[in-house]
Amino acid sequence: MIVNLLMTGNELMTGVTIDRNSAWIAEQLLGAGIHVTERRTVGDELGILVSSIEQLSLSADLLIINGGLGPTSDDLTAEALAKSCGVQLDENSQARAALEQWSEQRNISLNKANLKQIYLPAGCTVVPNPTGSASGFAMELNDCLVICTPGVPSELKGMFHETILGMIEQRFGITHETEVTRLQLFGTGESSLQQMIHDELPDWPEEVEIGFRAGRPMLELKLTIFSNKHRKLRDACLEKILTLVKPYFVGFDNDTLASVLVKTAKEKEIAITAAESCTGGRIASEITAIAGASAIFEAGIVSYSNNIKQQVLGVSNETLEQYGAVSEAVVREMLIGALRLSHADIGVAISGIAGPDGGSDDKPVGTVWLAWGSKDNIITEQFHLPFGRSWFQQLASSLALDLLRRYILGEHQLPKHMNRYLKK
Amino acid sequence: MIVNLLMTGNELMTGVTIDRNSAWIAEQLLGAGIHVTERRTVGDELGILVSSIEQLSLSADLLIINGGLGPTSDDLTAEALAKSCGVQLDENSQARAALEQWSEQRNISLNKANLKQIYLPAGCTVVPNPTGSASGFAMELNDCLVICTPGVPSELKGMFHETILGMIEQRFGITHETEVTRLQLFGTGESSLQQMIHDELPDWPEEVEIGFRAGRPMLELKLTIFSNKHRKLRDACLEKILTLVKPYFVGFDNDTLASVLVKTAKEKEIAITAAESCTGGRIASEITAIAGASAIFEAGIVSYSNNIKQQVLGVSNETLEQYGAVSEAVVREMLIGALRLSHADIGVAISGIAGPDGGSDDKPVGTVWLAWGSKDNIITEQFHLPFGRSWFQQLASSLALDLLRRYILGEHQLPKHMNRYLKK
Repeated sequence: MIVNLLMTGNELMTGVTIDRNSAWIAEQLLGAGIHVTERRTVGDELGILVSSIEQLSLSADLLIINGGLGPTSDDLTAEALAKSCGVQLDENSQARAALEQWSEQRNISLNKANLKQIYLPAGCTVVPNPTGSASGFAMELNDCLVICTPGVPSELKGMFHETILGMIEQRFGITHETEVTRLQLFGTGESSLQQMIHDELPDWPEEVEIGFRAGRPMLELKLTIFSNKHRKLRDACLEKILTLVKPYFVGFDNDTLASVLVKTAKEKEIAITAAESCTGGRIASEITAIAGASAIFEAGIVSYSNNIKQQVLGVSNETLEQYGAVSEAVVREMLIGALRLSHADIGVAISGIAGPDGGSDDKPVGTVWLAWGSKDNIITEQFHLPFGRSWFQQLASSLALDLLRRYILGEHQLPKHMNRYLKK
Repeated sequence: MIVNLLMTGNELMTGVTIDRNSAWIAEQLLGAGIHVTERRTVGDELGILVSSIEQLSLSADLLIINGGLGPTSDDLTAEALAKSCGVQLDENSQARAALEQWSEQRNISLNKANLKQIYLPAGCTVVPNPTGSASGFAMELNDCLVICTPGVPSELKGMFHETILGMIEQRFGITHETEVTRLQLFGTGESSLQQMIHDELPDWPEEVEIGFRAGRPMLELKLTIFSNKHRKLRDACLEKILTLVKPYFVGFDNDTLASVLVKTAKEKEIAITAAESCTGGRIASEITAIAGASAIFEAGIVSYSNNIKQQVLGVSNETLEQYGAVSEAVVREMLIGALRLSHADIGVAISGIAGPDGGSDDKPVGTVWLAWGSKDNIITEQFHLPFGRSWFQQLASSLALDLLRRYILGEHQLPKHMNRYLKK
């Protein structure tokens, strides 16, 4: 089965808008076991639209067009499809009824621009739009099912789930057998993981597709099967890969370092605190972005200045003078102070030089001291993350979240693969 | 001049990767006054690649191909272009020298996969890759200049700036006359701004293109001219639009709420603090993400629990009991405490219900109290932001940053357009 996509809109051609709809459509189709063959993106010009529709429908069984259904004069999809099919644009009674209902619900009076949206290619099938004013529609052209969808992402998604997937399944006799398993990893990169899998699991079966999505700071590993006949095989592969990636494994699906930390801390009823200098509140912010974080996070201190380190956290003047703010002794005292203040069970304290200024020969930009653990078991480590302010703050926060998570799980040592971030 | 793009890679077809390169290339070309006509995206299949190259080169003066230059067997761009041009793949001495230099610098020994990258279409022009192992290359086909570029964004960008733009300018006799002016706005949406411009500036000239990029929480407004003959006209338009958008204007180019706040506070030597409950450190984190923030931000307190509100910020037990944590009296005392602790000149305190749990009839999810200002002039306001936890935290932080910025600029009143976020 050949499937083509046609994405339309001047904003996609100028770089003003990054096209996320096509990736979303491709993922939905893949979920039904359907691969996209070609995607074409063009601006709002009638001639180019008509020739693209003709060419793409000739080579495909299914053509999905996205965009150009709106009320303005540069929304040309209906006109282009009508021209390609050699039919007129007619007022469509189903589309009119839907538009009238839409405007009544919102107390909007219809203008001429809105009414343009009910003129559709004669003989088309209307695809209802559950949230917007523009109806979708479908036609047959060159033995190809052509479906026109709106560019507004929420409208596209509503229409796809409510009508279009069912339409495609019915027409092409598709059963849902694709299954995707997603693993979230921290502390390894795509290429080294690929190499590891290549070396350690050389007989990887073709039936279980393996894929990666590199994010910062996580790496997602995906196992996909396209038939439920391969479930057993997938389960065996999953077991092997979980053993292989154990040092980096954080969770499944949409798990993040922060969400797994909050979940784990809740399960074990462990309260957490953070005393942050160079990360400036980012650790607290990532934890409290998780719903329900208040159960395990009561307080965080952002102590950018020495004054606050002393006054609020109780770091001693002597320690600051003798060792400087970015030092083992200071993060240790920061952590002790934060644990005392918040009555939390465990915590993390961090002090470092995010840059671009503030570095010295002795303590260059990228230097970070971390202290973590409970008041009777404080671990400290110096890292070196010379990666620019934004990635420095992101990575330092991620390391802190990961070390707290591991601490709760009983791993009190620095994991070996983090050695690469240590001060050489 | 007709320009087509051909984006290649299976990861672009399955939805695993969102294609950002094409928008970036389009922006660079637009900077030289060149519009892209058609973009085609296909997977790593030789037959489809060859026919796409043939078709796209026939209709264009310039074809840029992105992706498929890597060392693995599914990197097929060189082979496909050679086939389209009817030439052999030859070992290219310039590409070999570049690869050897690359591997020496990194102390990597070359394997067979790497060496695949030096076999290029006979007669091509090599495009040096300043950061990666794969050379780019260019050929003439069907009176069209075809340039092949790597999919790795940093390599694409390096190559584009160092060689490709110059190559295109030379070949097509282009002079840089495109100028883009970017305005960063907060507090208005794309459609209402469009309506406002339509109503208030009806005679907008065609020569000054107006565009929008809706981000969260900012809205970017762009004015583009394609010839420096139109500078005067653009300046006149800019003046009018700056008057129109004054209530929402934050800055130009890459300015953000936080960066403008830090810059303004630095200029006026005003130190800032934040006491955060429902935003959990996000305000502090956004401020300290800006380089040099330490000059104006010494301390922030994340006081999720009543205990910390009392112990660290000095909120009284009576106030908490009488009014509850999400109340005017509490945010006022939080701010007083944070100003006292940090010795900052101005600050913000926030307490609210981010949800999904914790709401009541009296104080539903989305309720927020903000206090801001200096110790002698504290302003308080209740907002209602019932938008889901993530957007709640983002918008609440953005409001806080904007109110601090306005306070420093002497606007001590809540701007009128923020009324829509007030508790009804």
